Formats: sequence, structure tokens, C-alpha cells
Amino acid sequence: MKIKDTETLMKTQFLNIKATQYEDTKGDEKFWVWVQRTGGRRAVVIAAVVDKGMIEIQPKVYQRDLRLVVTKEFRVPMVDYEYGFPAGLIDGEEDPVDAATRELKEETGLNVTRVLRKSPFIYNTAGMTDESIAMVYVECDGELSKEGLEASEEIDTFLMTPAEVQTLLEDDTKKFGAKAWMVMSNFVRYNEI
Amino acid sequence: MKIKDTETLMKTQFLNIKATQYEDTKGDEKFWVWVQRTGGRRAVVIAAVVDKGMIEIQPKVYQRDLRLVVTKEFRVPMVDYEYGFPAGLIDGEEDPVDAATRELKEETGLNVTRVLRKSPFIYNTAGMTDESIAMVYVECDGELSKEGLEASEEIDTFLMTPAEVQTLLEDDTKKFGAKAWMVMSNFVRYNEI
Repeated sequence: MKIKDTETLMKTQFLNIKATQYEDTKGDEKFWVWVQRTGGRRAVVIAAVVDKGMIEIQPKVYQRDLRLVVTKEFRVPMVDYEYGFPAGLIDGEEDPVDAATRELKEETGLNVTRVLRKSPFIYNTAGMTDESIAMVYVECDGELSKEGLEASEEIDTFLMTPAEVQTLLEDDTKKFGAKAWMVMSNFVRYNEI
Repeated sequence: MKIKDTETLMKTQFLNIKATQYEDTKGDEKFWVWVQRTGGRRAVVIAAVVDKGMIEIQPKVYQRDLRLVVTKEFRVPMVDYEYGFPAGLIDGEEDPVDAATRELKEETGLNVTRVLRKSPFIYNTAGMTDESIAMVYVECDGELSKEGLEASEEIDTFLMTPAEVQTLLEDDTKKFGAKAWMVMSNFVRYNEI
């Protein structure tokens, strides 16, 4: 495929609608309409656990007692609540780990204590948008708090055991963010994130 | 938050741009601009492995020799290639597993032999769009083929060992779909999807 030209069809405060003219694999001229966050801003999504120490699950068999940080947030496009993870836009040149630390604090009150790993910037749905996010996997501690929330945010936070996450995933009245669903499934299967 | 009214700001062939008027948690009137696929069409994303049998990784230690189906597809919004998974829109009332079976065949030539599990419809990026997808995890076999591709699709398919996926993930010149990156990371860590 050959990219020719991109024009902006519409600008709004947070999203710009773009049309890119291209030549498809047969040589036909086509347009692809897609969406860009204004300023090309990137985001972080935070997979976080609180480590409560070891528990004895059978006589003399111990495993880590981890709680996954799960958010329930009203999402206007869904006209519903989404079960997911803390997330937010990166400010300017902010490092993804710093953004994750800041957003976790703002949205839940929790403090990052250890960074387990992070992804590069990965693409949410590349047919529709060039939006990319970094997944940041952390351990955290502290008390849950809503003090850092903005008026546009309606977020509840839960600290959930693997069994509680499994029950939540089995509830077909609940809706989930895709990345959160995948980490939640891992947490149930492997007791880690 | 209270949802008041939604209007369509712009219609294109595949995307509609919407504005929803709502009252935020402080009671202020706001607009949220977001994107909907025309017809509200949903998609499937296919995490697929080919099972090559057992291999001896140390003397008398065997494990399954799995190859992950990885696609490399040109994405107009990214103006670049994305490493990801076969995916596509669901036709009408088509079951997600049927859609996954059809799309895997069209995009790669491979045949689904076993469905491992599937997700409900989960949301890619719910601040921007109500788009949802079902993850379908399968085993498959057959020969790679490009015969089912459309002119708008430029897709190469690779069957990769965990070690090959690890090398790919460590290459910071490559770009990845978010859901694929997460499954690839699992495949490297656990030798399963």
C-alpha cells in the first residue's frame, strides 16, 4: 500500500477525525477514515497488585496473597460502567512509569512500591486510531481514596482476590476493558499479573 | 453522571462521530465526543496456536511445541506495520467462534481445530469508542495462504516459537497491537495462550 495524503475532516477538543488517501494492493485509490487524540497524546494503563504476604492454601503449601486493583468507571460511549484498570493520559514528556504512578495515586489513592515490568507503546485498535498506550505492571500499597478524582471521573476501586476476580469475570451482566479482561484472566489462572 | 442526549456530528462509511451531552459528578453540563463503527459492528481477535506435538527440552523433560500465529499488517492510521493477530468484523448475527474460524481461514489459510476459550465482548478503548471485540483462543492447523485476502488487506503471517516471539518483542523498532502484545508476553512466559 502507498500512503498519499492525510487531511483533517473535523477537529474537536480531544479527538481529530482524519482521512488518509492511499493506494490499495490492487492500485486503486481509497480513503481510510480514522481518529487521532489531539496532540497525539499517549496513555498508560496500570495493572497493579497489593501484596498481602503469604497464605497457607493447603497444609504446608503457601502462596502469595495478592489483590488486584480493579476499577469500575462510568464510560459515556458505553452508557454503562466498565470494569477495568486505572489509566490516564501522559503529560508532555512524562515517563510512562511516572504517569502510571501519578494516575494510580489520583484515581485510587494507592502508591506504587515496585515496577514489575512495562510494555512499549502498543496500539488499542489500529484500524480506527493511532492511539497507543503503555501497560505498566506494578505492586502498590496504601489506602483507597477518591480525593484525586476529577469531576469528569466517576471511579470506584476494588482490591480483589483471584477468586473474586473469577466471580466477576463469570458475571455476564458486567462489561470489561479488553486489556483488563486479559490481565484478570491471567490473575485467575496464574495468581500473578 | 447523567446522560442526556446523543447527536451524530459526522457520518462516514465505517465510522460515525457522536457527541453525548451529560451532567458530570459536579452537576455541570458537558459534551463527550466519541466514535462508533457504523452499524455498531463488533469484531473478533484470534489468538491461535499450531500444536507440533511434544519436544524434549532437557533429557526426559518434554513440553508442547507450540507455534503462535502472528500477523504483520499494514495499518493506515499508524502509517506502519503492526504485529498482531488475525481479526475481523462479525457478519450480522454470526457467532464469534464462527467469525473467528472464517477470519482465520481468510487471513492466514489456517483451519480451527479446537476452541480453547473465548472472552465476552470487551472494550478496546472505552473513552474513545463503544467498539468491543471478542477474543477467541484456538488451536489450528493447515498451510499458510494469502488467497482469502481482500485488496484493502496487506497481511503476512508467521508461525513463531516462544523464543522467536521473545526476540520479536525485544525489537524496539517493531510495533504491536495491545491485545497481541499481552498474549505474546504470556506465550513467552508460560508456553501457552
